Amino acid sequence: MKEIIDQLIKFRDDRNWKQFHTPENLSKSIVLEAAELLENYQWGTMNENKENIKEEIADIVAYCLLLCDCYGFDIKDILKEKIEKNEVKYPIEKSYGKSNKYNKI
Amino acid sequence: MKEIIDQLIKFRDDRNWKQFHTPENLSKSIVLEAAELLENYQWGTMNENKENIKEEIADIVAYCLLLCDCYGFDIKDILKEKIEKNEVKYPIEKSYGKSNKYNKI
Amino acid sequence: MKEIIDQLIKFRDDRNWKQFHTPENLSKSIVLEAAELLENYQWGTMNENKENIKEEIADIVAYCLLLCDCYGFDIKDILKEKIEKNEVKYPIEKSYGKSNKYNKI
Amino acid sequence: MKEIIDQLIKFRDDRNWKQFHTPENLSKSIVLEAAELLENYQWGTMNENKENIKEEIADIVAYCLLLCDCYGFDIKDILKEKIEKNEVKYPIEKSYGKSNKYNKI
Repeated sequence: MKEIIDQLIKFRDDRNWKQFHTPENLSKSIVLEAAELLENYQWGTMNENKENIKEEIADIVAYCLLLCDCYGFDIKDILKEKIEKNEVKYPIEKSYGKSNKYNKI
Repeated sequence: MKEIIDQLIKFRDDRNWKQFHTPENLSKSIVLEAAELLENYQWGTMNENKENIKEEIADIVAYCLLLCDCYGFDIKDILKEKIEKNEVKYPIEKSYGKSNKYNKI
Repeated sequence: MKEIIDQLIKFRDDRNWKQFHTPENLSKSIVLEAAELLENYQWGTMNENKENIKEEIADIVAYCLLLCDCYGFDIKDILKEKIEKNEVKYPIEKSYGKSNKYNKI
Repeated sequence: MKEIIDQLIKFRDDRNWKQFHTPENLSKSIVLEAAELLENYQWGTMNENKENIKEEIADIVAYCLLLCDCYGFDIKDILKEKIEKNEVKYPIEKSYGKSNKYNKI
C-alpha cells in the first residue's frame, strides 16, 4: 500500500494540486465519487458497469488515502482500530444475521 | 492490507452478514459514511472532529474493500490502473495548478 | 405547486416509469442529484455554473415531490411540521448566530 | 409555497444563520439530508421509518428553497423549465418503459 500512496502523492504534487486538497474538498470529492458508484444501481442492478465500478472504487479509496495524508493517519491503523470498535459495538451473539444498527440491537 | 481484508471478511462472516452485503447495499453504505465524513465540514471547518474523521474514513474504506471482495477486485490493482488512466487524462503540462475536470482542460 | 406536481406525475406516467420509482430508487436518485449539485463547489466556488445549479435543484425537488406521491405526503404539510419541530429544537436564544447541531447547543 | 418560503427565511433570520447559508454549505447540507433519507433503505426496505422519511424530505426541500433564495431562483419556474427540458431529452416513444439515461436511449 505504501508504494501506491507514494504514487498518489507524487501524482498530486507533480500537478501542484495540494492547494486544492483541503480535508473539506477531499471529503466533498469522496461523496461525489461515492454517488457515481451508486449511479450503477440507481434503478436496480440492470445497468451496472463493472469497468466503471472499478474506477469509482479506486477514486474513492484514492481520495481517502490523500485525506489520511492531510491528517497524518495510517490507513491500516485506522482500519484496525475501527474493526476493534465494531467488535464491541456488534457482539456476534446479538448481531448474528441481523442488519440493525448497533443502537437498535 | 491482505491481513486487514481477511479480518473484515471474518467479521462479516462471523455475523452472517454476507446476505446484506450486495454490491448495491454496500454502495449505499459508502455514500452514507461519506456523508457522515462530510458532516464534519457542513458549516465550515470549526466543528471538525479528528476522532470521528478517522472512523468515517475507516468505514468508507472497509466498505470499499468488502465491495472489492464481492466482485473479486484487487484494491491495489484497481488503484494502479486508475493512476495510470489519470496520468493520461491529466497530463502534467495541461493540468499543473488547475482544478478543472479533464474534459475542461 | 399542485399544477407542477400534476405535470411531474403525468411526465412519469406517460413514460410508464412508475415501475422504477420505488421509494428506495427515488432516494438514491435524490442523493445522485444532490452530489451533482455539490460538484459545482467541489474545489471551491470558482467553477460554479448557475444554469447547472438551477437544473440540479429542480431535479432534487422533482424527485422529492415524486417520493411524496409514493407515500401520500403533502409537501406543504411536511414542511410546516418540520419548521414547527425545528422551532422547538432550535430556540432562538440558544441558537442565535451558532451553527451547532441541536444536540450540541 | 410563498408562505412556507417566508417562514423558512424568517426562521433563518431570527437565528442570524444567513452567515452560514452560503450556496456551498447549503449544497453540502442537501447531500447530508439526502443520505439520511437513504439510510432508511440501507439494507433493503425492512427498516424504513415513515416519520423519519417525512422529516428528511422536508429538510432536503427546505435547504433547496433556501438555496433558491441565495440565487434569486423561483422554485416553480425552475421546475417548469426542467420538465420542459426533460420532455425534449426523454421523448415518450424512445423512453417508454425504459430506465436508461437520455444519452443511452
